[in-house]
Amino acid sequence: MVRAYQYASGVPSARTTVKRHPERGAYARDVIDAVLDEALVCHVGFALDEQPFVIPTIHARDGDVLYIHGSPGSRMLRNLRDGIDACVTVTLLDGLVLARSVYNHSMNYRSVVVVGRAREVTAPDEKLRAMRCVVEHVVPGRWDEARQPSETEIKATTILAVSLAEASAKIRTGPPVDDEGDLDLPVWAGVIPLALRSADPLPDCGVTAAPPRYATNYERRRA
Amino acid sequence: MVRAYQYASGVPSARTTVKRHPERGAYARDVIDAVLDEALVCHVGFALDEQPFVIPTIHARDGDVLYIHGSPGSRMLRNLRDGIDACVTVTLLDGLVLARSVYNHSMNYRSVVVVGRAREVTAPDEKLRAMRCVVEHVVPGRWDEARQPSETEIKATTILAVSLAEASAKIRTGPPVDDEGDLDLPVWAGVIPLALRSADPLPDCGVTAAPPRYATNYERRRA
Repeated sequence: MVRAYQYASGVPSARTTVKRHPERGAYARDVIDAVLDEALVCHVGFALDEQPFVIPTIHARDGDVLYIHGSPGSRMLRNLRDGIDACVTVTLLDGLVLARSVYNHSMNYRSVVVVGRAREVTAPDEKLRAMRCVVEHVVPGRWDEARQPSETEIKATTILAVSLAEASAKIRTGPPVDDEGDLDLPVWAGVIPLALRSADPLPDCGVTAAPPRYATNYERRRA
Repeated sequence: MVRAYQYASGVPSARTTVKRHPERGAYARDVIDAVLDEALVCHVGFALDEQPFVIPTIHARDGDVLYIHGSPGSRMLRNLRDGIDACVTVTLLDGLVLARSVYNHSMNYRSVVVVGRAREVTAPDEKLRAMRCVVEHVVPGRWDEARQPSETEIKATTILAVSLAEASAKIRTGPPVDDEGDLDLPVWAGVIPLALRSADPLPDCGVTAAPPRYATNYERRRA
């Protein structure tokens, strides 16, 4: 039986050390970056008066920084830019792991946890660069074709940046790991692979042109 | 242009009222339940000494309760069962919304936010029911085939329950919503549909039987 957990060397912080299943922890930036770059959605955690909130939003990585963005009216962004601690987590689900015993069922996944305080991006050129990052992160090639943001639209967008200085990945891959005594049970065991897949693009009303290449056969996984 | 936001009536709490894009908010339990039941992974938020953490894990709904489970060694579960406030969020990504302008790009999604305190499930019969819920939530039909949990394994599983009393959904569906002045721009606009899809099951070493029906053509979306 092969335990195919991926692992990468590096030095985690106290807050980002993977505690459960430490063999699944990975701290190398290339591993972390690949997960952040493939994921389309992150979950941002922040606490207000001790009540935690977890809000899904779009992110994009630019070097050592993770940008998240939204409306200046967003409660999440308003609170985060005041300098409170945040946690940004992304998770990619790769498969269902069916073991012979209920107890050893699992999932294959790649997740990244980033902790830190956000800073608000206010310089117009960095704001524009961050907006470009976000669009190109989601649909590479789209930025140059769509109508560019006006000055008003840039002002109406709040961008926060979180450093990747404190980040860790946790990854499970491979087959089920059953107890020795269960291996001969007549129970099917294996992995059901899962991935986010696209279907044919649906043109908006009034659009007669063929969809651009980046919209057909859209694939998320970067091999 | 049709704004196809789904909406359902109901009474949200102060903590679960959708503040940004209130027209996307939904508070009816059937809408909330459908999102919770389709999602395979939730993101649990909790704060320790004001530092929020967001951890992905498996959940399952049983009536008015959301179960989350894991090892007794899990820091998240140990802290949550001490009665701290939590937030459990699930997000389903349904599509990328490409507008004519960068500014109006969006995503189609269905998300649910549940806030509340977790209680630990200690009665063995409720623990077993919760474990069954989790397995059947992920792979319907699997529970009766796999080896059932032993007493030791049940003891080695921590189960927490969070009430669905305070929950809300946020949903965006439909085409891009462009500014009137952008409609004639020669820019392709529309939606790229996305969904989690399965591939052929991969049998574990030594498994020669054909995969069971629930493992082939595994589909997440309950139509």
